[in-house]
Amino acid sequence: MNLITFIDYAGTFVFAISGVLAGVERKFDLFGVFILGFVTAVGGGTLRDMLIGGTPVGWMKNEIYVYIIMAALPTCYVIKNTILELKKSFFLFDTIGIGLFTVLGIQKTLSFGLSPLIAVMMGVVSAVFGGVIRDVLSTQVPLIFRKEIYAFACLAGGVLYLVCDYFYTENFAIIVSILTVIVIRILAIRYKWSVPYNP
Amino acid sequence: MNLITFIDYAGTFVFAISGVLAGVERKFDLFGVFILGFVTAVGGGTLRDMLIGGTPVGWMKNEIYVYIIMAALPTCYVIKNTILELKKSFFLFDTIGIGLFTVLGIQKTLSFGLSPLIAVMMGVVSAVFGGVIRDVLSTQVPLIFRKEIYAFACLAGGVLYLVCDYFYTENFAIIVSILTVIVIRILAIRYKWSVPYNP
Amino acid sequence: MNLITFIDYAGTFVFAISGVLAGVERKFDLFGVFILGFVTAVGGGTLRDMLIGGTPVGWMKNEIYVYIIMAALPTCYVIKNTILELKKSFFLFDTIGIGLFTVLGIQKTLSFGLSPLIAVMMGVVSAVFGGVIRDVLSTQVPLIFRKEIYAFACLAGGVLYLVCDYFYTENFAIIVSILTVIVIRILAIRYKWSVPYNP
Repeated sequence: MNLITFIDYAGTFVFAISGVLAGVERKFDLFGVFILGFVTAVGGGTLRDMLIGGTPVGWMKNEIYVYIIMAALPTCYVIKNTILELKKSFFLFDTIGIGLFTVLGIQKTLSFGLSPLIAVMMGVVSAVFGGVIRDVLSTQVPLIFRKEIYAFACLAGGVLYLVCDYFYTENFAIIVSILTVIVIRILAIRYKWSVPYNP
Repeated sequence: MNLITFIDYAGTFVFAISGVLAGVERKFDLFGVFILGFVTAVGGGTLRDMLIGGTPVGWMKNEIYVYIIMAALPTCYVIKNTILELKKSFFLFDTIGIGLFTVLGIQKTLSFGLSPLIAVMMGVVSAVFGGVIRDVLSTQVPLIFRKEIYAFACLAGGVLYLVCDYFYTENFAIIVSILTVIVIRILAIRYKWSVPYNP
Repeated sequence: MNLITFIDYAGTFVFAISGVLAGVERKFDLFGVFILGFVTAVGGGTLRDMLIGGTPVGWMKNEIYVYIIMAALPTCYVIKNTILELKKSFFLFDTIGIGLFTVLGIQKTLSFGLSPLIAVMMGVVSAVFGGVIRDVLSTQVPLIFRKEIYAFACLAGGVLYLVCDYFYTENFAIIVSILTVIVIRILAIRYKWSVPYNP
């Protein structure tokens, strides 16, 4: 298992845990929290694959994602008392995860012969729409439409990935892209950046 | 028309009626109740087909489902005064329906070369996500995420279908699977089973 | 650029502006208003393409739609003070737009070898489901399920398109269809038509 695969799985796992915890907050039953963990973890990539069309969505052909999400359920039981202490590790994997999901979404979209603009859009969709679907299924206005700016972090990371991949190497591009997402997100939280739109 | 086709159509019809009635409760107009009847009846199978990808979703290639759902609209007018008396028949067809939809969803997914695990998941999606989409379109938290346990009835029925189909015959597997769903659902309602998740 | 393309683009632009304004009302940030503009403009066609399956959805292969929707963001800034004066032009393009989207949806569906009934349904989906997705993403009950009757205007326009296309010419059918949608929608608003369903 190389580093990219590890980050992919770790990101999926952390996303699933955050979805499960959202379900617990909403007092869902076991089925409800599993579905919420599932859509949070793979909902963005699933929407991307459905938009691109033509084949089964990614996790159908690679069951490991299903097992990772299932593993989030007992894990939340075990770590329930230490969840606050784990918050920093979670934030780290979550942020590395959205960076990587953006890159993987871009690569997959380009592999279908679609344009760089569409690829960057699908990268952002891969990274953030899991959370949108989670919120819609809980009948809450998607958080990312109001406060979180990590869609812009993904956008910046995605554009830099394309530029660096064009001029340098893929691995360098992936590192730059993920670091960009991490830095923007941390700065955004520290300095309370927001991107309002008030015409 | 063989028995499976009859149950499929009857299940679709009963699902559509339950969707139409949900729309009436929410004071939707004719278009709204039709859409709600439609997604309740075929939404689960539609989502399954969109996830599997590659071809138009099932009801597009077999208009009979559209006609069955249309027929639910005048039917609700006719039976409005006897709907309470019909409740038991409805419950029966609804439950047989989700059992059969689970099996049909599994069979369709396997026919695309996907794994038994994914097939069982798609069986459950076929059976229960029509109701999820109905609730989301009405901006209500999906009922099945909190109370109803029939997702687990479908899961049990789906697993037993695969086991019995492997060791015995398909027809036997279908009967066992549907009976399992019916029995679990009736017991769950009688004994108020629930599957909470409180870490 | 012929007349059909012009109406298509103008309709997309007006839909996007209405989505952006809906996002502003809900106090969404820049990302949120863009997504709401996007789904309002192309959500119906996107759902249609996902239901038909097999290829990337339309706007992925023709970036002009993405640029048109992006252009709605600065436009809303510029016109913010004159938006009420522009209301009539907007209504006109919006209504011509849903008429044309119905026709384009029908044509695309027929080109996949699907039946006229399914084609008319997909025409209506193309025209009105962008608004449904917009409302669901804002956790509001879709407006069109309760009040607006323009789904029926699209239905009438769609059926007339098929009839006129069969007996006369395509261009004549398009004109009749769009005029039908416009006339029904204007009459519906003036005389407060509604299509209740109260069994």
